[in-house]
Amino acid sequence: MSNITRLRCINCSRTYQPEPGLYTCPICGSTDGILDVEYDYDYINRSLSKASLAANREPSMWRYRPFLPIAQEGPLPPLQVGWTPLYRAERLGAELGLKELYIKDDGLNPTGSLKDRPSAVAVARALAEGARVVACSSTGNAASSLAGAAASVGLKAVIFVPGRAPQGKVAQLLIFGATVISVQGSYEDAFHLSAAAIAEHGWYNRNAAINPYLVEGKKTVCLEVAEQLGWQVPDWVVLAVGDGCTMAGAWKAWVDLKKAGWIDRLPRMLGVQAEGCCPLTRAFREGTRVRPMEENTLADSIAVGVPRNPEKALRAVRDSGGSMINVSDQEILAAMGTLGRTSGVFGEPAGVAGTAGLLKAVREGVIKSGARVVVLVTGNGLKDVANAIKAAGEPIRVAPSLEALREALAGFEEGKN
Amino acid sequence: MSNITRLRCINCSRTYQPEPGLYTCPICGSTDGILDVEYDYDYINRSLSKASLAANREPSMWRYRPFLPIAQEGPLPPLQVGWTPLYRAERLGAELGLKELYIKDDGLNPTGSLKDRPSAVAVARALAEGARVVACSSTGNAASSLAGAAASVGLKAVIFVPGRAPQGKVAQLLIFGATVISVQGSYEDAFHLSAAAIAEHGWYNRNAAINPYLVEGKKTVCLEVAEQLGWQVPDWVVLAVGDGCTMAGAWKAWVDLKKAGWIDRLPRMLGVQAEGCCPLTRAFREGTRVRPMEENTLADSIAVGVPRNPEKALRAVRDSGGSMINVSDQEILAAMGTLGRTSGVFGEPAGVAGTAGLLKAVREGVIKSGARVVVLVTGNGLKDVANAIKAAGEPIRVAPSLEALREALAGFEEGKN
Repeated sequence: MSNITRLRCINCSRTYQPEPGLYTCPICGSTDGILDVEYDYDYINRSLSKASLAANREPSMWRYRPFLPIAQEGPLPPLQVGWTPLYRAERLGAELGLKELYIKDDGLNPTGSLKDRPSAVAVARALAEGARVVACSSTGNAASSLAGAAASVGLKAVIFVPGRAPQGKVAQLLIFGATVISVQGSYEDAFHLSAAAIAEHGWYNRNAAINPYLVEGKKTVCLEVAEQLGWQVPDWVVLAVGDGCTMAGAWKAWVDLKKAGWIDRLPRMLGVQAEGCCPLTRAFREGTRVRPMEENTLADSIAVGVPRNPEKALRAVRDSGGSMINVSDQEILAAMGTLGRTSGVFGEPAGVAGTAGLLKAVREGVIKSGARVVVLVTGNGLKDVANAIKAAGEPIRVAPSLEALREALAGFEEGKN
Repeated sequence: MSNITRLRCINCSRTYQPEPGLYTCPICGSTDGILDVEYDYDYINRSLSKASLAANREPSMWRYRPFLPIAQEGPLPPLQVGWTPLYRAERLGAELGLKELYIKDDGLNPTGSLKDRPSAVAVARALAEGARVVACSSTGNAASSLAGAAASVGLKAVIFVPGRAPQGKVAQLLIFGATVISVQGSYEDAFHLSAAAIAEHGWYNRNAAINPYLVEGKKTVCLEVAEQLGWQVPDWVVLAVGDGCTMAGAWKAWVDLKKAGWIDRLPRMLGVQAEGCCPLTRAFREGTRVRPMEENTLADSIAVGVPRNPEKALRAVRDSGGSMINVSDQEILAAMGTLGRTSGVFGEPAGVAGTAGLLKAVREGVIKSGARVVVLVTGNGLKDVANAIKAAGEPIRVAPSLEALREALAGFEEGKN
């Protein structure tokens, strides 16, 4: 690909040319040897400019194609991923004393999460490499986004899920025509069986940490934020962190834009984890390597006890002068209501964990009043209605008569004051 | 509003000027006296053109503001409604022998359904009229879209639901901060109590059949289809029908575009109902007025035994030279899988009923091979995961070993051949 110069191992700094089947540094191995994609920014600037984007009506992430690790010509999967709305949150911003607050609603992607972005890149690359099968192990947003994107182009998707995977999530995969392998064991069993099967069959490997191109798909969320803000860099970008790949991707957007000369400064990144599963926050605070942790939170999409991309994420937060913060499950549920009530955006628990972290960071003075802040909502609330029920409270029950209604509403208004 | 000339009663043809509080014809009453909005097409053509739209990057239904019954200046609710993707369904179209098949995925609206369009119009009008409360009775997509749109602008929403309303749907309303009145009785009880309360309090009435402006919001789905097809009119537009308002709105788009001189012919409309609840299909076939029917289908969003806008819908189908068709619940569930597998689009049962009807209409020769067809998917599959589970089938269960996987996959491949 003419826009990529090389892949560089984040551990040993050795460089490689991109080629099919090369996912991680062969010297450092698949845990430490995560690769980073490096671009030819002159090439990018010859292909794309702020002015050409301003005239471009393509309402998807493909508007940034020269910034992406895919062939610059040829077919792309058709699902309309990205170019999701960035809302100015006037009321919530004012409540928090922020100068400007923006909400990026990535739950409006085709299968309901930010993961549609990396999956679109995976499928585009699989098509370019002539693969006929794409595979991953996941029960969550990565799986549904991969299954949807594969269906849109007629690729076969093989998804490995642990036996305990929720029926609803499995159903969505089956609706998309994926071959779903329910591994009668733990998530770890499913992961290892998928790795062995992928190696045996030569399937295209959609695994966000191992596959270096997926972080590049994730970065489109912040390329969009930058364009939607008129290339004015915010002071803070706030998002929930599980595996670490989304943090790595969100940060990469700003780094690429600065290297390409499109922006002149970088934002700070605030990573938010759940108290019950926060190996990255712990490592950030202690200045140590990540150690495994229990997965004790209802925000399932960020319940990752063994993050697979810790180094890229921690470097992003540190290099940005940012921070990591933890929120409780109660704070996550409360943020779901705060966000819905003040903006009309409905996020899943992990999707609103960023908002919960923002509220706490303002309270604790990490984010100062007067700041310009962007918070990412990474998944749709319809993905997890069970937890919305926990967050929602109760309706007002009345008998079917105007009199009963009058009494109930009077009591309700009093109760509110 | 300078773009509207008058409202005309579809029963007695009397005309009225639009004013706050006027929803139906005072002479014919709220059941028969549905009003139709008439426009000044010269005004529209002075404000909007194909060329101005081609240069307009606004990715929402507001790009058609001069075609809408709202003030042409002033604030609009910020949620990004509409401009949803229109996908060319190559594989499914070829399978069916169609010349071209397109899928309009309206499940990607902010709260997950086409109903976000009329609710956006309702909230825009409520703001213009200075209302502080908007209300409706519904447990479904109308309610969630109204609650979301109201939250986005800080209006209060009061939603009346029957006692049996599913907890998940009530939760979504509460997350959006709506006041949810759970009426301990039937849906009919909830409807009547809401009507009385709306009259007593002077709340803004968001009821798609009674409020004549909401159909106009719905029409934006087909204004978009027309623009996305480069103003080439398809032969057929296929959609599911419950109350009849969506059919009325979809048809109004083509009528408006022809009256404004933007297109030179009209498509045929195919309305699809569930076998277990098909009062409109029956009336269409028998040439009679609509009579009430039981509500016996899993496609809850179109389970409407007493449609509130039957005349507008039946006229649309008849005037277009179109037809009505029924599908079974089994056909709806099967269509969910067909759509997901061939296109990566996941619709709720009512949302894919249109697709089920298309498959049947092609089989029965109602839609001829070689036709150019657009099918609307009106709601997101994540709205109703329970039925997706019924449609989905079972995953392949294996022990966590490569050998077990090999055996299972071999059997699976054989089973498929």
